Amino acid sequence: MPTVQNPRLTGLVCIRCGRRYEIADHSTGCPACLAEGTPANLECAYAPGGPGGVEQPYLRPVTLGEGGTPLLTDVTGAVPGLDVTLKWEGANPTGSHKDRFSAVAVSRAVHAGYQGIAAASSGNAGVSLATYCGRAGLRCEIAVTDDTPGQVVDLMRDLGAEVVSFPHSEQRWEHIAGYRDSTTMLPVTNFVVPPVGSSPFGIEGYKLVAEEILTDRSGAAPEWVVVPASRGDLAWGVYLGFRELLGAGAVPRILLVEPFPRVVSVLAGADPYATFPGTTRAMPSLGGNQLALQAVEAVRRSRGHAEAVDDERVLAETRRLWRAGLPLEPSSAAGLVAVSQALAAGTMTADSDVVVLATAHGLKGM
Amino acid sequence: MPTVQNPRLTGLVCIRCGRRYEIADHSTGCPACLAEGTPANLECAYAPGGPGGVEQPYLRPVTLGEGGTPLLTDVTGAVPGLDVTLKWEGANPTGSHKDRFSAVAVSRAVHAGYQGIAAASSGNAGVSLATYCGRAGLRCEIAVTDDTPGQVVDLMRDLGAEVVSFPHSEQRWEHIAGYRDSTTMLPVTNFVVPPVGSSPFGIEGYKLVAEEILTDRSGAAPEWVVVPASRGDLAWGVYLGFRELLGAGAVPRILLVEPFPRVVSVLAGADPYATFPGTTRAMPSLGGNQLALQAVEAVRRSRGHAEAVDDERVLAETRRLWRAGLPLEPSSAAGLVAVSQALAAGTMTADSDVVVLATAHGLKGM
Repeated sequence: MPTVQNPRLTGLVCIRCGRRYEIADHSTGCPACLAEGTPANLECAYAPGGPGGVEQPYLRPVTLGEGGTPLLTDVTGAVPGLDVTLKWEGANPTGSHKDRFSAVAVSRAVHAGYQGIAAASSGNAGVSLATYCGRAGLRCEIAVTDDTPGQVVDLMRDLGAEVVSFPHSEQRWEHIAGYRDSTTMLPVTNFVVPPVGSSPFGIEGYKLVAEEILTDRSGAAPEWVVVPASRGDLAWGVYLGFRELLGAGAVPRILLVEPFPRVVSVLAGADPYATFPGTTRAMPSLGGNQLALQAVEAVRRSRGHAEAVDDERVLAETRRLWRAGLPLEPSSAAGLVAVSQALAAGTMTADSDVVVLATAHGLKGM
Repeated sequence: MPTVQNPRLTGLVCIRCGRRYEIADHSTGCPACLAEGTPANLECAYAPGGPGGVEQPYLRPVTLGEGGTPLLTDVTGAVPGLDVTLKWEGANPTGSHKDRFSAVAVSRAVHAGYQGIAAASSGNAGVSLATYCGRAGLRCEIAVTDDTPGQVVDLMRDLGAEVVSFPHSEQRWEHIAGYRDSTTMLPVTNFVVPPVGSSPFGIEGYKLVAEEILTDRSGAAPEWVVVPASRGDLAWGVYLGFRELLGAGAVPRILLVEPFPRVVSVLAGADPYATFPGTTRAMPSLGGNQLALQAVEAVRRSRGHAEAVDDERVLAETRRLWRAGLPLEPSSAAGLVAVSQALAAGTMTADSDVVVLATAHGLKGM
């Protein structure tokens, strides 16, 4: 069944300057903002008249049944002192929230006539994109770093992806940048420095996280939504979803979780386009020394907050959570550590109504 | 929130002789049939007056949001020559259909006051039971064989299970049998020879597969449901679900898939309590040289069929399916090979309406 573009999709809009663009793959974000040295992602714009839920750019997408993940309430012991609700994204077809992105990004590539997609990933995104490309009959090239676990590289290759490996993370981006003007291979993850984030089409898939949370809670928005982040694709997509359904003034507060201060520093006055020192071994999905503006905007516009969490504490908490029947990868367990910190600091209280995005299970060995 | 027993659960009934028993853990199946040398599992019996869907023995069970898995239509290329529908059980919390069993079996153990559960498993069931026991705060002992991959044993241990390993599969059963009269540890998988199958409470969880298939198809039953099987817990549970919703005469035909002739032989006249020669390296979830009667009954009562599939063909098909975006473990890919065989033999035609249970993804390394 062919992928169909949503007839109400009218174009793309810069999240920073508001300039409008026609429907196309602007892999470096807003061209005008890029030229000004302040790169920013675009977001999809739709004409009014939608069907009620959030708009999606492609109808009848390439799918493996992603989404509709369980919202677990009453998760005793996940965070001592606060009854959080978990959105269990591990129950996606390949075990992470990335499947939501892949379904839409690959549908875009199919609709626009590309032969394949290219992406930088060392984990869930690569496995997910390889799977969805396989389903769509597209080529898939994943650029990893040399320290990516062999087990994960093997999974990607078994799924038909071409895997290329580089010593340093930035070299992956340089490689992907080689496809910036390609008419055959579509880059769907960031390769710009400073970063803009991933495909705005793919990010639209994350809006459904917001819709499902509201549906499962009979329309009641939580007070907080906790989102682990690298360059903020998921946080931004979740923000867009809540904004579309509730209006800009009623979006739940986003608690953005990072492995060392980036958004934390920006909220304290740093330039969002700066380089932020720090490393993480435990949370490879959340690494990177530069931000995308969308991560900051998701927090600012939702009157949110950011917490940096420590490798050692996250690893200890991950071990504890596994033994409590919550096999999260450390980059997901980070969200629960952040809630503990926010509780200790008084940002949250024992009565706070908090949904944590449990972004991926750890059973794949990541 | 405490687990509550369904007030309409009235007892257990032998699937072979129809004798009734009070609600208890008859881990060796029907005592009378066992004494006669023809072991048979029990099934849950309910008083009328249920809420509409299938009955479940425990309400408010221990849960990680299992079930509600996607039903994928239009899966081009899964089986050349026939458009099958896939029930993607990999989108359960720990990546396999076993989560449905674990949720109910562990809820039973909690309700009945056990301190833990014991099970023989070399894969998905062990990972799943360890997870659900962790959630419930129960001990979990998993008996594996020495050839179980270290990666899988590590997962179980990281999830808090005590793993004990034996050279031969039968030695696992002897070990689990040591708990047959335990008031602290509940065996939830088979340890009887000839086998009866797993906990009848846990099997009730599989009835929801049938309910979800009917719901997603607006009530229209498929012609065939394809179920990979070892001792037939899943096939029997799916049969029970359809029977409860549609009546005994309207259950879809079950195509049972096995790695060498067992049910195939019984349908050709062999004694169901015989020993069936054969081995499989590719499909450890489907191994075992003896049947449980429930596997045969699921096929017989549904006017079904059985197909034995070959290791080499299944492995080749698994590799092909991964590259087509369907990362199934070989024991799941077996179902698609069986459909190809049934098509070639004329048991199915290009127009057949077939749902294949894609029981587990292969991303955990099984």
